[in-house]
Amino acid sequence: MDNKMVRLIPCMLIISGLFLAHNHCAAQKNGGFPFELPKTKPNRKLSAAMQRNYDGYPAPRPEENELYSQFKYTELKGFDYHNHDGTVSRRDPSKVIFANGKYYVWYTHRNTPTPPMGALKCNDTIPSSDWDLCEIWYATSTDGFTWKEEGVAIPRPPKPMVGCRSVATADVLLWKGKYYLYYQGFNEPSGMRGDDCPVAMSSADSPDGPWTPLNQVVIPNGAPGEWDQYSIHDPYPLVYKGKIYLYYKSDFDGKPNLVRMQGLAIADNPTGPFKKCELNPVLNSGHETTLFPFKEGIAALTIRDGNEHYTIQYASDGINFNIAAITSFLPDAAGPFIPDAFTNTKYGRGITWGISHFTTVTDWATNHAILTRFDCDLSLDVNDTGMKGAHIYHKPDFYYKMGLSKTQRERIENENKALGIKK
Amino acid sequence: MDNKMVRLIPCMLIISGLFLAHNHCAAQKNGGFPFELPKTKPNRKLSAAMQRNYDGYPAPRPEENELYSQFKYTELKGFDYHNHDGTVSRRDPSKVIFANGKYYVWYTHRNTPTPPMGALKCNDTIPSSDWDLCEIWYATSTDGFTWKEEGVAIPRPPKPMVGCRSVATADVLLWKGKYYLYYQGFNEPSGMRGDDCPVAMSSADSPDGPWTPLNQVVIPNGAPGEWDQYSIHDPYPLVYKGKIYLYYKSDFDGKPNLVRMQGLAIADNPTGPFKKCELNPVLNSGHETTLFPFKEGIAALTIRDGNEHYTIQYASDGINFNIAAITSFLPDAAGPFIPDAFTNTKYGRGITWGISHFTTVTDWATNHAILTRFDCDLSLDVNDTGMKGAHIYHKPDFYYKMGLSKTQRERIENENKALGIKK
Repeated sequence: MDNKMVRLIPCMLIISGLFLAHNHCAAQKNGGFPFELPKTKPNRKLSAAMQRNYDGYPAPRPEENELYSQFKYTELKGFDYHNHDGTVSRRDPSKVIFANGKYYVWYTHRNTPTPPMGALKCNDTIPSSDWDLCEIWYATSTDGFTWKEEGVAIPRPPKPMVGCRSVATADVLLWKGKYYLYYQGFNEPSGMRGDDCPVAMSSADSPDGPWTPLNQVVIPNGAPGEWDQYSIHDPYPLVYKGKIYLYYKSDFDGKPNLVRMQGLAIADNPTGPFKKCELNPVLNSGHETTLFPFKEGIAALTIRDGNEHYTIQYASDGINFNIAAITSFLPDAAGPFIPDAFTNTKYGRGITWGISHFTTVTDWATNHAILTRFDCDLSLDVNDTGMKGAHIYHKPDFYYKMGLSKTQRERIENENKALGIKK
Repeated sequence: MDNKMVRLIPCMLIISGLFLAHNHCAAQKNGGFPFELPKTKPNRKLSAAMQRNYDGYPAPRPEENELYSQFKYTELKGFDYHNHDGTVSRRDPSKVIFANGKYYVWYTHRNTPTPPMGALKCNDTIPSSDWDLCEIWYATSTDGFTWKEEGVAIPRPPKPMVGCRSVATADVLLWKGKYYLYYQGFNEPSGMRGDDCPVAMSSADSPDGPWTPLNQVVIPNGAPGEWDQYSIHDPYPLVYKGKIYLYYKSDFDGKPNLVRMQGLAIADNPTGPFKKCELNPVLNSGHETTLFPFKEGIAALTIRDGNEHYTIQYASDGINFNIAAITSFLPDAAGPFIPDAFTNTKYGRGITWGISHFTTVTDWATNHAILTRFDCDLSLDVNDTGMKGAHIYHKPDFYYKMGLSKTQRERIENENKALGIKK
């Protein structure tokens, strides 16, 4: 489309807006909006919100939207956390895969003499952050609820190789019969400047290993001044359009708050080169990467940060994402079981469960994370009405815990005084 | 805009899409997206999500978006609930107004010999629902936290006048120095067919009354077959563009689930006639009406139900609403304090607090509701960073309460079996 046409669209929308404003209170010939919600967009004048309800979402009701789901959480069995004293942590699970008759998951594992102590107090054995001085471990399960920890998959390599300080936040790829783990490789403790790392990779013929490190950066940070100059987090490979589509998150800016957005890098082979998408970032929100093939495109859980937190999004081309659903209590770091993650599917079927983590288990002094199971219905093959409710009710005490701070109380008192209220 | 132009837009978007797809992996001349998030839309090719981040929201970061807020909740003092045995209920507060040196709020008050017993067991003194056999009561406060219940404002009128079975869910209007309460008038118990009622109105020279009922339907239900044929809920008047803009909710369809959307009726005088907007519904989601003048338009809290639940929306014309922010833990039935609700403001300043209700206080056998205070920062005059966080963390136990049902566990077991997993 040339620039002239681009300029035309806003004009046409303005003309359309005037037209609507002029007519908004004349009765429509066909009477009021129908009592039975039409399944497809009715042929009548509609408000912006009603137009969006038909054009903007997969279905006019969330309960009939295949990309709308609530999330249920179940405690996992089989993991020991050393009495939750903060010295053992498991977090940032990979996707779950099914192989050799069981489920596999990889995750960041920390086992250190102390809980995280921050960048100023850390040393060769004391971690700065919960993901410092970590290794990639893995576990297997036959039911998805009880797991057997199998041990280390990717240890820290010796200095000065990438990841010598910590390897964390792995995700898995199956490509032409071979397994690949992509992960964050830290060469200095998190918190020295920020949370800086590129992506490293190891490969194996079996999900049980042994894993051979590529021993080089496979996805480099951006050039100075670019959004991903410091961090490439949560590398997340899928097979799509015959290529490896690897999504990732970066933290950037930081004035005053870090911005979290997600990008895409595409490769023909697991060792790269990975070409970053020129339209990056492709997701304006979220925190950790969770995507899956869905119909002809890619769907994404977009959690925690940004204007579009708490949404599930869809891009029919894997690049240009739109909001498909708005929900709540999304898993913070979901690694879903995606049966067609690596099949180069032309029509993705979706997901129903996976592993995520909780980071607020105890308190800051014993800071650590635990793995959890989540369930949902984002699958074309399941129709679980128990996952499609519109709202979750909580008791008043739950809300009262989200109370006012002392500063906020003082602001309110001053606002009351400004109205001239006498006590 | 004529039909030809309407058809042109999708074509132009498709052309634009092809153009983007063709070029998406060529490096942009100006390098990767900048590390410092530009405050305005940068002049470079952007993904759909990044375009939306600039075009779709008041600011590229939620914490700088005047219509983004979290919500804090505080227990109110001054109300007795008869040991929460279900015989006393207070719910569906009106907007809060400031008059005579104090705050006023009106609400649905039930005081019955038993808790609600359903439509089959109700009679002249036993309520069917929590809002059956109710009156409109009011309370005052000098700090917004401790309230003094003043007693009844609107009693049930004698049969067969509108509201003779129950008057509920009032909201207040101040117009040319006089006060008006609009409320749902039930002539039969809720649950006989549905939750059917039109809107009635009473007026007074002072917020302390006495209130004179108009004794007629002021906003009638729609014609048979129209979306609002049975119920006009939560009448919510604001003064806008020199007129009374009264928003309302209706429940419709019901196959399989009720659909909740919101409409608008406009009048030149408090007694009407109220002309329903031909573009109704104007909000495709939500449950109870909560709107306020904001800048040159009207903002809405859109809660609980529909594709766009959990959003805060904005319509520069009061009619065509768009999502301005996505958030969580919105108050279920907010009646905000809106200093400029009735001033015919040309530039609304927003809200920072109000009264809402909780309906899940005890259990179904002692079903009743309680009033609560909520606070937020949806005001141009306040900048409370404590309300602008992106996310709220909860402990694992909170999530585990949202667990799987027995049916869901069985579905999962069957899915595991289908993969050929042996126990």
